[in-house]
Order: sequence, then C-alpha cells, then structure tokens
Amino acid sequence: MFLASDNTSGVPEQVLAALGRVNDGFSLGYGADDLMQQVQAKIRTLFEAPDAAVFLVATGTSANSLAIATYVQPWSAVYCHRHAHIEEDECNAPEFYSNAKLSLLDGDHAKIDAQALETTLTNAAEGVHHVQPGLLSLTNLTERGARYTVAEVTRLAAIAKAKGLPVHMDGARFANALVAEGCTPAEMTWKAGVDVLSFGGTKNGLLGVEAVIFFDPAKAWEFELRRKRGGHLFSKHRFLSAQMDAYLTDDLWLDLARTANARAEALEAGLTKAGVRLLHPRGGNMLFAEFPLKAHDALRAAGAVYYDWPAPPPQGAGGDHPHQCRLVASWSTTEADIARFIEVLTAAL
Amino acid sequence: MFLASDNTSGVPEQVLAALGRVNDGFSLGYGADDLMQQVQAKIRTLFEAPDAAVFLVATGTSANSLAIATYVQPWSAVYCHRHAHIEEDECNAPEFYSNAKLSLLDGDHAKIDAQALETTLTNAAEGVHHVQPGLLSLTNLTERGARYTVAEVTRLAAIAKAKGLPVHMDGARFANALVAEGCTPAEMTWKAGVDVLSFGGTKNGLLGVEAVIFFDPAKAWEFELRRKRGGHLFSKHRFLSAQMDAYLTDDLWLDLARTANARAEALEAGLTKAGVRLLHPRGGNMLFAEFPLKAHDALRAAGAVYYDWPAPPPQGAGGDHPHQCRLVASWSTTEADIARFIEVLTAAL
Amino acid sequence: MFLASDNTSGVPEQVLAALGRVNDGFSLGYGADDLMQQVQAKIRTLFEAPDAAVFLVATGTSANSLAIATYVQPWSAVYCHRHAHIEEDECNAPEFYSNAKLSLLDGDHAKIDAQALETTLTNAAEGVHHVQPGLLSLTNLTERGARYTVAEVTRLAAIAKAKGLPVHMDGARFANALVAEGCTPAEMTWKAGVDVLSFGGTKNGLLGVEAVIFFDPAKAWEFELRRKRGGHLFSKHRFLSAQMDAYLTDDLWLDLARTANARAEALEAGLTKAGVRLLHPRGGNMLFAEFPLKAHDALRAAGAVYYDWPAPPPQGAGGDHPHQCRLVASWSTTEADIARFIEVLTAAL
Amino acid sequence: MFLASDNTSGVPEQVLAALGRVNDGFSLGYGADDLMQQVQAKIRTLFEAPDAAVFLVATGTSANSLAIATYVQPWSAVYCHRHAHIEEDECNAPEFYSNAKLSLLDGDHAKIDAQALETTLTNAAEGVHHVQPGLLSLTNLTERGARYTVAEVTRLAAIAKAKGLPVHMDGARFANALVAEGCTPAEMTWKAGVDVLSFGGTKNGLLGVEAVIFFDPAKAWEFELRRKRGGHLFSKHRFLSAQMDAYLTDDLWLDLARTANARAEALEAGLTKAGVRLLHPRGGNMLFAEFPLKAHDALRAAGAVYYDWPAPPPQGAGGDHPHQCRLVASWSTTEADIARFIEVLTAAL
Repeated sequence: MFLASDNTSGVPEQVLAALGRVNDGFSLGYGADDLMQQVQAKIRTLFEAPDAAVFLVATGTSANSLAIATYVQPWSAVYCHRHAHIEEDECNAPEFYSNAKLSLLDGDHAKIDAQALETTLTNAAEGVHHVQPGLLSLTNLTERGARYTVAEVTRLAAIAKAKGLPVHMDGARFANALVAEGCTPAEMTWKAGVDVLSFGGTKNGLLGVEAVIFFDPAKAWEFELRRKRGGHLFSKHRFLSAQMDAYLTDDLWLDLARTANARAEALEAGLTKAGVRLLHPRGGNMLFAEFPLKAHDALRAAGAVYYDWPAPPPQGAGGDHPHQCRLVASWSTTEADIARFIEVLTAAL
Repeated sequence: MFLASDNTSGVPEQVLAALGRVNDGFSLGYGADDLMQQVQAKIRTLFEAPDAAVFLVATGTSANSLAIATYVQPWSAVYCHRHAHIEEDECNAPEFYSNAKLSLLDGDHAKIDAQALETTLTNAAEGVHHVQPGLLSLTNLTERGARYTVAEVTRLAAIAKAKGLPVHMDGARFANALVAEGCTPAEMTWKAGVDVLSFGGTKNGLLGVEAVIFFDPAKAWEFELRRKRGGHLFSKHRFLSAQMDAYLTDDLWLDLARTANARAEALEAGLTKAGVRLLHPRGGNMLFAEFPLKAHDALRAAGAVYYDWPAPPPQGAGGDHPHQCRLVASWSTTEADIARFIEVLTAAL
Repeated sequence: MFLASDNTSGVPEQVLAALGRVNDGFSLGYGADDLMQQVQAKIRTLFEAPDAAVFLVATGTSANSLAIATYVQPWSAVYCHRHAHIEEDECNAPEFYSNAKLSLLDGDHAKIDAQALETTLTNAAEGVHHVQPGLLSLTNLTERGARYTVAEVTRLAAIAKAKGLPVHMDGARFANALVAEGCTPAEMTWKAGVDVLSFGGTKNGLLGVEAVIFFDPAKAWEFELRRKRGGHLFSKHRFLSAQMDAYLTDDLWLDLARTANARAEALEAGLTKAGVRLLHPRGGNMLFAEFPLKAHDALRAAGAVYYDWPAPPPQGAGGDHPHQCRLVASWSTTEADIARFIEVLTAAL
Repeated sequence: MFLASDNTSGVPEQVLAALGRVNDGFSLGYGADDLMQQVQAKIRTLFEAPDAAVFLVATGTSANSLAIATYVQPWSAVYCHRHAHIEEDECNAPEFYSNAKLSLLDGDHAKIDAQALETTLTNAAEGVHHVQPGLLSLTNLTERGARYTVAEVTRLAAIAKAKGLPVHMDGARFANALVAEGCTPAEMTWKAGVDVLSFGGTKNGLLGVEAVIFFDPAKAWEFELRRKRGGHLFSKHRFLSAQMDAYLTDDLWLDLARTANARAEALEAGLTKAGVRLLHPRGGNMLFAEFPLKAHDALRAAGAVYYDWPAPPPQGAGGDHPHQCRLVASWSTTEADIARFIEVLTAAL
C-alpha cells in the first residue's frame, strides 16, 4: 500500500531489458547515439509532428526549467498556477534557469481559471518598470490531480496566444492525463496551442528520463546549449535513449498510465463507497481525500504509506479529526493493494 | 578499436545487475533511499573520512559546477588550468552555477604550475574593483592525460590554503589517477588538502553517476539546495545509489580503472616501439600521439575511432603530415583492440 | 499642479550648492572621498547606531536590490506585499541581484497583514524542494501611501525574527513616514527590528542618491562587492556624498518631507471637503482618490498632471464615471498649487 | 600634481550650470524628459547616425556591462584584451549582466593583436560543449594608455564581423582617443565596424554620465529593460540629460579632451627630456613611466599623487630601484602642475 508518489515505484522489466540491450559495444555520447534518432522519429510520429525537435533529460525539474528558459527573457513573467510544481516544488529552478518571474494565477483544483488569465494579461502593466508577459505554463495533470481537458487547454492557450505568448505544458503526468482524456498526443498539445512539452517518463515507469518536445524546432540549438550549460547533457546518452525507446515501444507508456489510472479509479470508488470526501476531481492517478484521523492511524498501522496533505494533523487531534492526505497510484500499484487499503479504511470508520 | 573516449563504453554487468536488484518494490525518492546511506558509509570508509558528506549526481559537469558553486561567491576567481575541463568543455556551466570568473593558469600537460599559481595569488589585486581569490580547482587526471602526484597536489593545495582558498578536485578520472599513483583515496584528497572531490563514475563504468564528496560536511545543506535548484536531484534516486554501490563493491571501481590503465600502457608501449611521439606523459588511461597522416588513414580504414586533437588535419595534407590525436582506453577496451591498433599503425608507417 | 510623482520635482538650492562646493580640486573616487566619512558619521548619529555601515547608490531600485541580495540566498523567499515596489515596479531587479523568489503577502493599503505573515511563515514548507524563508521586506510609506506605525513595524519584524529572518525596509519615502509618525529614525528602524534600510533621498529632494544603512556592519564588505559588481559604485563619488551631506544638514531632509506631507494634508482636507472618496488612509505625501471623470477632465484642462490609477478610464466613460487616480505631493509642491487643484475640482463637481 | 586618475577631477562650470538650469519646475522621469530628446538628436548628428538609439547611465561599468549583455547570450565568449577594463576592473560586472565568458586576448599596450584575434576565432571549437563566439570588445584608449587607430579598429572589427560577431567599444576615454586620432566620431565607430559604443563622459568632465549608443536601434528596447532591471534607470533623469547636453554643447567634450591630452603631451615631453622610460606609447591623456624610486619619493614629498603600477615597490628597495607608475592627466590638470612635476622629478634624478 505504497501510495506516497508515483516516483517511488521502480521500472517495468521492458525498461531494464532495454538498458541491457543498449549496453553492448561502444557508442558516441551526448545524444549522438543511433537510438536517439529512433526516439525522435517515434515521438514525431506519435505527436504527428514531423519537424518536432526532441531532447532527453533525466529530471522533471530540468525539463521544465530548460523548456521555459528557452522561451522567455530575464524580464519575463511566466504565468502559472499558484500551486504549479514549477512554483512550489522546484526550489527556484525555473527562476535559476530563466531569471524570469513566476506570476501566479488562481483556479480550482490547481487548474488556471481562464478568466483569471484573461484579466491578468489584460491588466499587465506595460512599460519598462514591469516584467513583460512571457509564457503560459500549464501542468497536466495538475498538482491536485485534476485534468485540463483538450478544450480547456485550447481555450487557455488561445488567450495566451492572443497576447503573443508561447505555451508550455508540464507533462510530468502527461500519459495519465492523456489516457484519461482519451485524446491523441497531438490533440492535447500542439493542436491545442502548446509550443513545448515536458513529456514525463519518470513518474510513469522510467528510471529517470523526460523528453522535451519543441513542436517548432527553431529553438532547438538554444535548448541544446542551455542543456549542456546546465549540466544536463549525458555523456552515455544511450541509456536515456534506451529508456525512452522502450517506453514508446508497443504502447508501453500508455499501458503503464492506464494501469495507474485504473488503480486510482478503484481507489476512488472504494473511498466514495466508504463515504470519504474527495477534495479534487480525479483527473488520472492521483487523489486527495479527507477522512477521520483514526482511519489514517489504522492505515499507517497496516503499512500504508502516503503523504499528509497539505500538513500533518494538529498535535493532540482526536480520532474523529478530519484529516487530509494525498494518494497516488502508479503502474506498479496492485489491485490487492487498493483492495486492502479500502478494507482497512472501511473497517476503521 | 574504439578509443574516442572512455564515456563511449557501456557498463559492466555488475552495474546492470545492481539496477535490477534495486528495482523491486517501492522506495522513497530524492536521496532518502536506504542504499544511499550505504553508499555514504562506504565512501566514508574508503576515504577514511567519517564525517564526509556524500551526494550523487548524474553528470560530471553538474558535479563540478555544483561543488565549486558551493565554495565560492559571484565575485570570486576560480583558479584552474587553461585547459581544464571546467574551462574548455562545459559551456559556461561553472559560471552558470557559481557566477564566478575562471582565472586561467599555465603549466605543462594541463597541470597547473606551482610557481604560476603562487605568482598569480601573490599578485592578485585586492580591493573592490577586482574579483576576489576564491578557489583552486585541480583536474586529475588532467585533460592531457597527465597525473598530479600526491606531492604535487599537496604543494598546490598548500599554496592555495596559505591564501585561505579551498581546493576542489575534478576527479572525472580519479580512479585512473589513483591506481596509477598507487596511493589511497585519502592521500590523494583530504590528506593532500582537497576540500571537495568530484568522484567520477561515468567514465569508469557507470551509466551516469558521479559522487560529490565534501570532507567537511559544513557545506552539505547548501549543496543539497543547489543540487535541487539545478534540477539535479533524482526522484528515483535509488538507481543512482545502486550504481555507485556496485561500483564500490569488491573494488570494482579499482579493477575497472586498472584495466583501462593497462590497456593504455600497452598502447603506449606499442606506440613507443613504433617510434610514435607521445605529446604528454601518460598518467592513466589517456594518450596524445603524433604520427603521419597515412597511418591515421590506415587506422580509420581499419575501423579505429578516435579524435583528431586538437584539430583535424589541414586540407590537402599529405600522408607524411605529422598529425595529432587523442586515444582513450576504457575498462572495456580489449587487449585485442590494442594489439590490432598497433599492428595497423606499424604496418602503415 | 504637478502631482504625478515626487520624483518629478527638482532639488532645493542647498543641494545644488553642495555640488558646487565639493567640485573644487581633486578627490579620491569610489567612496574614498572625505565627505563620505562625514556622511557616515552623520547617519550613525542620526540613527543612534555608532557601528552602522553606510553606502550610497544613485537609484532606489539598486538600493533595494543590493540590500536584499546581501541578506538572502538564491534559494530564499523574500516576503513582501503583493503591491510592493520591489514586486511591481523594478522589472525583476530584486530577483536579478538576489536570484531569490519574491513571495507575496496580502494586507490592506499595501501593508502586510501580520496574521498573513505569521500564517505564511508557519506553513512554509521545509525541505529541499522548496525555497527557504529568507527575508521580510517592508515598504514605508507603502505603495498605496499608507504608513506602518512603529508598533506595526515592530510586530512584523518580531514575527520575522522569531523565524530567524532579517528585515529590510524600503524607505524610498522614509522621511515622509518618519515625520508623519513623529518618531526617531532609530525607533522606526533598528529599535523596531529592521536590519537594513534603503534610506531614500531622491524622492525627497536629491538628484539621485539613496543610502543603504546596515545596522550590523558584518555585511559591509559583501555589499561593497555587490555594489561594484552591479555597476553602482560611482567613481566621482563625492557628488553623491555632497548631496546626502546637504540633505542631512540642518534637518533639510525633515523640512522637505514636512512640506510635502503638509501639502498632501491640505489636499486631503480639500478633497474631503469636496466629498471625494479617498481610497487609502494618508500616511504621508501620497493620496489615492476617486471622483467623477468630468472633474478629472476639468483638472487636466487646467493643467493638472497626475496618474490614472490603477488604469485609464474605460473608453466611452461618461462624465459621472467614478475614476481613480494617484496624487503625490513633493517638497516643491506649492500651497497655491493645492488650492488651485481643489478650486478646479470643486467647481467641476 | 594630482595625476591619479581622470576621475579624480571635478566638472567644468558649464556642467554645473546645466544642472541648475534644468532644475526648475517639474519634469517626467525615467528618460522621458525633453532634454533627453535633445541629447539623442545631438548624438545622432555628431555620429552621423540618424537612427542611433541613445541611452544614458551613470557609470562606465554599467554602460559596458549593459551594452555587452544586450548583444550576447549566456553561452557566449566575449573577446577582449587580457588587460581590458571589463576584465580587470569591474569585479565580474560584465559576467553578472551577460552571464557570458570573457575570453582573453594578447597584444602590446593592451591593444588586441589582430593575428591573435584571427587565430582565436579560427580555432574556436564548435559544438555544444563550448562557449560560442559572441562579441568583440575594444577599449579605446586602452588600459595602458595606447590608442587604436581607425585602421586598427577597422581591421579588428572586420575579423570579428567575418565570423558574424558584433563589436563593442569601451570608450571611457573615447574623447581622448578621438582628438588624438583626429578623426570623426563616425570614423572611429560605425564606419569602422563598431555596433555599440560606451561613450564616456565621467572621466572627461561629467559628474557621472555615460551614453550607450546603438548604431542599429534594433536592440533599444532590450537595452531599456536591461537598464531598468539593473537599477540603472534614473527617475530624475533630466540631471543626466543636462550633463550630457552641456558636454556636447559648443564642443565642450572635445575641448576638455584636448586639454587633458595636451597636459599629457607636455608631461611626456618633460619625462622624455629627463631620460625617463615610457612603457607604452601615449595615445591620449595617460602615461606609464619608469624612473628611480628616489624620484618617486621626491615627487610624493612634493605632493604628487598617482598610482604605483602595476604594484608598489618591493620592501627595502633602494633609491635607484627602477619603479613604475601610471600618470593620468585630466581636463583640470594645469600647465603649472605638469611643470612642477617635471621640475621635482628632474631635480631628484
């Protein structure tokens, strides 16, 4: 019952096997490996974007920070949700890479409200004293587990583009959003107005690989220089390529996300049946729930691992204290885990 | 006959096996995995440094840049050799992370000349108009394949410390230097005055892991924040820990370096016997050689892969043109490769 | 009727005369002029702070940015009001100098609400993924013309210091706040918990000089290096010293502020009598008012100059549209100007 | 006998008078003052550059750093002389503003050797591991008092432009170079290939103003944002405009430079007659000389002020020790000062 984060899972055997296969012999480094060509070709096909430029890095923070930095200036405002990962969980990395200012927007479930974006952009002060509108960054799934629909991405991107802003999508959980939405990768991204995507792999079954996909390749060389300057260019790059290649082979990435989402769906059903209040609509594989502290105690005693969210219970809180938590399913979460979780919870209520 | 770089090799089976072993089950991320505790303990023992703080990153550039940035200020001078990796091959990453200025020193074979360092530090202008002396960075092996002896490290570090400067060692090829020098890790580092070491793993058989070792743990928390802010903190950190743990088990890292050095030694012997001029003394697993272009042509025709160094031959150069190259052996270079290389070369001369 | 900003005024004759006096002969540059010693001594006496380190720069943005940068780290959060000058009007300069993140707090009249600060600091996430609490910055007068009382500064600073945070005061209009509050410079600053003050001169009658005052001199040398590195160290520094010296002589700075405040007070009285709504309580020399567009039209026609605030009137707005503006009095605003302004306004209502 | 630096002088009466004139009344700030339009017009005429964009800042370091930053990227190499002011005397400000790397070139008298530039650019490594060629920066006069001729500027700029690099000129002593060279401002700059000029005023008689002149206005807006973000945009900008306007009126700037150069010429003649060795050819108003320590002692005793250069005499050096110094004449150096200096020196030899 390990529901702390999808990044606490390991990787499926196909990914490990790919590392073994690519290990033989010598290979040029720094992205010049043959397999990287194949990865780029696969992603272009997958996204129906024959000109896309594709790069691999090993962490989500670097993917986001480098992607954003490539599109903005040090005097830019990057518009994102108040609870975006780039704002709350990256220790200033986006600012480090871009020197820009994150300008925070509101909206339920960590989804940017379209009206808030419109108002903010309309009221953005012009002139040299102020940061200049720079980029819109959307996180899908959001940090509260909700999902932007294709229509919502399209609308937000249209508002941004009407002001000349490029659009970035932090897709650390892109696969989970995609399979839940039931659309194509192109529909969720460039067809909806996204210019650059952080295409997550790590949370969905890789050891540590994210792709940065530029639908317009004009920024490719600048990205390459930024990646190197950030220390994010791997010498033995083939080991990143191999992971991403395995991920894209035979729809592995979609299967992994479907499994994670199915587990979260089962969890949601169980929680609902048990009368537990869910704090945000489930967009994919992540839930936020509130239930009495005594049930948390029972779950922890039974070995469940997950985060108190947003904070630990107050000292001396009684068993009936309504306490909130985050529950994340991954590709390796089992049906048995979910069943047991619900069983323990239900018994404790 | 792949002698382009030690980072064009794969990894030994022990390392792959370790990835498989650590893959089972769930594990807390971001360095909180149990294996990381074990790695730190092993490195402390190995370096006879019970208080050392140990961190893992995936690239040499990030290891160097983060280690240096943790010790200097934006108005500091970082003293390094004119041909240091941090100066020539990291696309401004050290400056990106530290904002400091690299101040370049001379010396044969990419080794800093002690007198040059002494003179530079003595003459360093004081006052607010000038960068302030900040840190000495040594690369061992050097970028020309030479090796600082323990005595040389000690002398240079003493000069730096007399001015209050900390000392960093870029040990991307630390293992190669160590086994060639025949000293202990402690003797090469903190006993000689090194404060922080980039302990290379990638060039010597890992997929992509370097340890940053602070012999004084006072800087640990700042390093952690810098690592995260740089996007270099891995969520599935266990896969870095597993590599480093395998590396340190049963002296694997030393065996790998001994093999690489032995291949280079055999290559050196063959080249010397063939009358080839070596440009720098061999410190470990890397050679720089000059021989007629026709021999290069023959080698390339036979499948040899290596870099022209420092530059391609001039257009229209004839077969007798003395042309220079870099040859790097790795743990996976075979005796047969070396023999064949010498055979082809000798035949062509 | 020029009420656009206090920085649209010139300087009093004493300041110009001081430039003339200091112009004779040669003088060492870069702050080594004799007059700077005198300025530091005067400020130490004035603030009852015999150890204070005092530096001069020419712009408020540089004063704030350098002062803050000296106290924080690139992974710090700087807590300030959502409508602080450092957030809204400095084009990312604080972030440029400090690399830190501005974390925005609410409160009426651009004054930070103590409870909001307390809650934010209490809830600040720990751990390496998040920016670390760094510094509290207060603006007095605020950007909405209100004033923190000594008691309020003391309370906010106490909350910050309980978490170990230093406190910066942006005193671009420090003199206006001080004479309105009727306290001593020490009471408004270090006695209330302020560690570093941007002591404004430009808005209150200098050509372009602000002092940065560190009540604890430990940060002095770092500040000097940051000032030089930012290009803010003047070679002919005596011309900054002379301005500040004249400012502090015979209480000129207090007289100038008293005049500006008195003009604003008269304006406030006239507006109130005319039934005009004031949007924020007057803390010193700045007012925000709402009255019908037809009165604005009449004022502009009569030559009044001031800013629409926060935005121009909507297109097609009628004469009765309630429109908002900012009105700033300076040391050079005349009684006649104020009287005429009220006269025109009253006639138009 | 104050020959320490031209920035230890005051300003001529015309400049002070201009401050007084512009002081009357109210004026919009931040460069929107009417006088700034006049300054731009005058500079455009003077440089025969009707499209030039002109900006004022208060320090040479900010002029250079902002000008360079506007033309390069964080992964750029800025080519300058090893003894350029931007390398030696600005405490990393160019790197702070640009994040680029200064790449140092050799040449006599602090003038970049054309062959050295050509070779460096030809050999500049391509590829993502290396900084990319970014900009050539020339200092005229150089930091050793020599002068680039128009032909030399033209040749160096041509080499840079053949590689696609823009050219910056640090003209802190531009006027001194210009009147010595006897050419037009256009000939020394854009006609010779200079793209952006730091047009010095402070060393040649202003309180603290430098113009940054972009001969191609495409970079204007970026510069404005960088200036603001650096805290270098003055609110009471009219006081900068007034200085520069006075400077350009009735050829004041040229007269001031002619005077300084004439004093240096007289000094040179006297030194030569006294048998003193000059270390660099005089390009304008600055000399470097070597003569016995006893003569230095006599001069200091007589009240002469100047810098030992490059370093103080060794401890215990005798009166015959040949000691080196820098001697800088300014617009306010008198003939009597020079005569007295030579008299004392000659008597002591």
